[in-house]
Amino acid sequence: MLPPDWKLVKQITLDAFLIALEVLGVIAFALSGVIEAARKHFDLVGVVMVGFITAFGGGTLRDILLDRRPFFWVEQEFWVWVLIALAFFLPFFFRARHFVFTEKAIVIPDAIGLGIFTAGGTHIALELGSSPLIAVLMGVITAVVGGILRDVLVNEVPRAFHDHQPYAVVAFAGGWLVVLLDALLLPVSITLLFGSVFIILLRLMSVKFGWELKRWRFL
Amino acid sequence: MLPPDWKLVKQITLDAFLIALEVLGVIAFALSGVIEAARKHFDLVGVVMVGFITAFGGGTLRDILLDRRPFFWVEQEFWVWVLIALAFFLPFFFRARHFVFTEKAIVIPDAIGLGIFTAGGTHIALELGSSPLIAVLMGVITAVVGGILRDVLVNEVPRAFHDHQPYAVVAFAGGWLVVLLDALLLPVSITLLFGSVFIILLRLMSVKFGWELKRWRFL
Amino acid sequence: MLPPDWKLVKQITLDAFLIALEVLGVIAFALSGVIEAARKHFDLVGVVMVGFITAFGGGTLRDILLDRRPFFWVEQEFWVWVLIALAFFLPFFFRARHFVFTEKAIVIPDAIGLGIFTAGGTHIALELGSSPLIAVLMGVITAVVGGILRDVLVNEVPRAFHDHQPYAVVAFAGGWLVVLLDALLLPVSITLLFGSVFIILLRLMSVKFGWELKRWRFL
Repeated sequence: MLPPDWKLVKQITLDAFLIALEVLGVIAFALSGVIEAARKHFDLVGVVMVGFITAFGGGTLRDILLDRRPFFWVEQEFWVWVLIALAFFLPFFFRARHFVFTEKAIVIPDAIGLGIFTAGGTHIALELGSSPLIAVLMGVITAVVGGILRDVLVNEVPRAFHDHQPYAVVAFAGGWLVVLLDALLLPVSITLLFGSVFIILLRLMSVKFGWELKRWRFL
Repeated sequence: MLPPDWKLVKQITLDAFLIALEVLGVIAFALSGVIEAARKHFDLVGVVMVGFITAFGGGTLRDILLDRRPFFWVEQEFWVWVLIALAFFLPFFFRARHFVFTEKAIVIPDAIGLGIFTAGGTHIALELGSSPLIAVLMGVITAVVGGILRDVLVNEVPRAFHDHQPYAVVAFAGGWLVVLLDALLLPVSITLLFGSVFIILLRLMSVKFGWELKRWRFL
Repeated sequence: MLPPDWKLVKQITLDAFLIALEVLGVIAFALSGVIEAARKHFDLVGVVMVGFITAFGGGTLRDILLDRRPFFWVEQEFWVWVLIALAFFLPFFFRARHFVFTEKAIVIPDAIGLGIFTAGGTHIALELGSSPLIAVLMGVITAVVGGILRDVLVNEVPRAFHDHQPYAVVAFAGGWLVVLLDALLLPVSITLLFGSVFIILLRLMSVKFGWELKRWRFL
């Protein structure tokens, strides 16, 4: 049996790991929002706000749906400051490096956010006693809603519906993997890591190899 | 006096009736979302998601506003599966029948959803003790928000605001009818049936006869 | 020491003052929504709905995020009726006066709403025990979300992100002023009045003198 403080150390380590993972997801999604807003020539404040909404929109909607408080950005206030700083300094960094944004620039941060948020959202819903299907839907909502809000705010048809590449469906599949690993009673950190990596790789491969979803061509 | 199990039977019959009505509304609205997304050549996953959001968006916002849990789609998980199946198989069915979608194709399912959701939403809010005006607003929100989200997501000006045909105002009138019937202490099933049918007929007549709302032409 | 009914009188006066301020903000924002919808030739019902959403959208989202009930429009039902009446009669009034709406017509009501809602939202969040940063964010959300919804609903890029004039950043600064005045233990009415007026003036000056936010020109 572990002595009590060992347990505490493990708990703290796990908590720190979960927070680190969520922070990585937040920064990845914020980056995708910042890049998109910058491509549309928004002003600095607009860039910060779109970054913020992209990063926290999905998780906040999930928490509203699950009636779960406090929100991540209320609890982890430090990261709100990081995000604001990021959005302010990023443009100078990009300009100094003569960075050019193609439409593909947000693919990698977006994939990372997709993986981490789906796995995390599914896990949180399972812990609160949701059924497998609802947990997977919550994971998909966590991951997809931020990006949908981002695209609606820059007045475009949401990429998630329209680009004919697997996006939400990758999250859906990954959510079921998290449900499966969770049912096998694997440690939480392993479950989340496997789930996230699976989704990230699947998404990047689908972009790289140009997998396409059947579009509805019955008109 | 009714023996206890008679009461139970009546209660179960009423519950089944209410669920059947809501399912019909959900499928009608989902259909309108699916058709709209298909007309925009969304991919299969986008079609499922737009159908899902159109069907459940209004009721979910109503439940968030009324602080009411669990949501319909969390409680009646079976219908989520039906919806997913529907959105996947519908295109093949439509294509096989050489079905052509004109802009008018969503009028009938949309009217059915409008009627059922307004009546149901108003009734639920009244039961939770809302005042008549707030109950009617909740009914209108239940019925109209799904369609607004559908139109925003396909990047169009919401039809509810713009098509100059009575839509939300039909729901508003029908909501007051439900409030009236409720005040007369009619059985719930009668109230909901009358309210729904009144709205559906009024909406279909307004489309058929081309009734127009005054538009603001002061520019 | 004040006798008890003096205290009650002060409390009632303060409550009336707070409600009066919020009503002024609601009407100002509703007006901006009504004008915008009228400029897009929405029908009467669309105009009422966009006015309603612009006026109550921000406060409602704030209350959902803070888990605070009842909503302002549920509690102060009278003002919902005022709003509906306003949206119905305003067009006739405007037409009778040959009023022409330029794009600038919504600047003044919008600024008044911005000031009042930011100050009020920040104050409410502080009272519920939010940290300063979260309180300021809640103030900004209260003030900005209604306008963002208005612009999304008329299918335009939200002005708050895109017009390169200080808008949300003015609210952000004003929110911190409210936090400061609150920390100095000034009376609530003074805090709200100072905060609101500061934001309104700053916003109007920024429009008048054409202050511009740096846009991201790194493409």
